[in-house]
Parts: sequence; structure tokens; C-alpha cells
Amino acid sequence: MQLAQLECATNLTPPVLKQDYRDAMARLAAAVNVVTTDGPSGRAGFTATAVCSVTDEPPTLLVCLNRSASAHPAVIGNGILCINTLSCDQQALSNLFGGKTPMAERFAAAGWSTWATGAPVLDDAAASFDCRISQINSVGTHDILCCEVLALRRRDRADGLVYFDRDYHGVCAAI
Amino acid sequence: MQLAQLECATNLTPPVLKQDYRDAMARLAAAVNVVTTDGPSGRAGFTATAVCSVTDEPPTLLVCLNRSASAHPAVIGNGILCINTLSCDQQALSNLFGGKTPMAERFAAAGWSTWATGAPVLDDAAASFDCRISQINSVGTHDILCCEVLALRRRDRADGLVYFDRDYHGVCAAI
Repeated sequence: MQLAQLECATNLTPPVLKQDYRDAMARLAAAVNVVTTDGPSGRAGFTATAVCSVTDEPPTLLVCLNRSASAHPAVIGNGILCINTLSCDQQALSNLFGGKTPMAERFAAAGWSTWATGAPVLDDAAASFDCRISQINSVGTHDILCCEVLALRRRDRADGLVYFDRDYHGVCAAI
Repeated sequence: MQLAQLECATNLTPPVLKQDYRDAMARLAAAVNVVTTDGPSGRAGFTATAVCSVTDEPPTLLVCLNRSASAHPAVIGNGILCINTLSCDQQALSNLFGGKTPMAERFAAAGWSTWATGAPVLDDAAASFDCRISQINSVGTHDILCCEVLALRRRDRADGLVYFDRDYHGVCAAI
């Protein structure tokens, strides 16, 4: 009965337009991350706001990645990645890794190290999560990558970088 | 060869401790949402920061939900939910829906309406996404719920509410 009602209501509701969805999503603030990979399938990196925690048993985040993104083959091929959560003073890196700049030029703009997986770990990120991809689920145009954390670093007193209403904002760390 | 190296590096890396993971995740700023459901399995709602966009074809968000959460049976049983992204002045609701307060008392604290699915839509939210659950994937203690958006609303000039470094922060909307 309830299902029938829902189906009925659904049929009566016009589909949500892509632009309306994007406009409403602009109201959902998000941290800005540079996600990197390296290995046999190449070195690549991209800016992502669609990142969140899944569980702490085992420590696992997820990141959503468009299957048509230039970094997609390298990320999937290598099977590993590092999620670098940007601090307030790293806005320029967000623009660089979110644009059309060649990969080598993107990486030349900052300092990096490697830990367990070999994915580039960004110097001075607010936090970095070095991960192996443990599960991939495809939804529409995107893959949801579940990423088990093998190593991490948290920077002390780093102010955060937030994207909200199509603009950057800083958020202050607790003292 | 690369896989062997990774396996080797992984074996050498001590497991990431739950508390270290939580401390690092505190550096990942996130919007605050009250997620609601209603239907044959009951009315329920909970506060969630693990929400992000998956794809706009079809418009789909995801929310991560602990399988031991009190709202879990209702959300899964009803198969529908509404993600209400809080505005800066709705911090009290975040605390209420994130605590141990009985469900009826939580809902009594605000005004609600219903759209396509029957899930409660919060008055004056920065944005609301009325959804049917289209896919569920379990990872560790949590379910990742992929939610197709059937209807939405975006509030004009609503400042956002962000959780970062274990505290609330406001972010200003563009004028």
C-alpha cells in the first residue's frame, strides 16, 4: 500500500533537473581535497569535494570519481590513492588540480612524499590519508571508491578550506 | 611487481588506530544534515556529516549510516529519506538529532512538510533532498545509502553550517 502510494507520488513528480540539483548541492558545504595516485598506471591527481568517512572499523573513507575524469584510469589501475585534505592556505592547489593543467605541472607546484602505497602525500595538508581501494561501486556517471586507510597524518592547528555556494571559505581550527 | 611491493609495504605498516583516524577526520570539514524518514517502518531522523554528491545523472547523493544507529531499521524499512542540509541558525537541531532524545521530541522542535516520498522536509533548511534509496553497500560497521533525488528545495541566501575540528562554524552565502 505504502509502496503503491510512493510509486504514484513518484510518477506525479517531475524529474529533478540537473541544474536545479547542482544549484541545491552548492548549499552543501564540503572540505576540499587533492586526491593523488602513482604506480604502473601512472601518476595523477584531482580535486574532490565528494569525500567522506564511511567507518572507523577498519578506517575507511570514500571518494566519488567521474569515470570520464582524466585521473580515472590511473586511480583504478594503481588501486591506491592518497586523500590530501587541503588547509586554508592551499586554495591555489585546488584550482590547479581541478583544472586542465597537465599532471606534471600540477605536481611541480607543491612538495610531496610517499608512505605505504607510493601515492603522493602533500606537504602541509590539513590531513592526509594513504589508502588502498577496497571496494568500487558504479552509480550513474561516477564510481564510489571505498578506501581503507593504511597510514595518515594530521597537521596541528591547520585551518580548513571549505567550498560552499561556489566559493572558498576558511574555517578556523580550535586553539 | 608493484603489487608485491605494495603488499610488502602494507605488511610493514602498523594498522591505523581508530582514535588516530578520528582525530585526522576532524580536519575534514563537513556540512551538517538532518536525515529523516517516515512510513510503515516508523518516523526517524538523525544528524549526519557523511553526506556527499555522487552524480547528477540521475541526481544522486549518498549518506553513510551506522547499522547500529536507532534510525537504521526505519530508514532501511521505508526505503526513502530526506536529506535536510542545515543552515547556520539550525545548530540546535543538529545536537537534538545527534543525541539520545526520543524521536517524537526531536521532530517537535521544528516545522516539517512532506513532498514525494513522505519523509519529513525541514522548514528553512539550506537545502532539502527528498530521495528514494536506490542502492545499499555495506562497509565495516556502516551502510552506504545511494539516494536518488525525487524533489528538492534550495533556500535563498542561507548561510551554511559546517562541523570542523569538533566544533560548529558558519560559512556565509554569496550575496
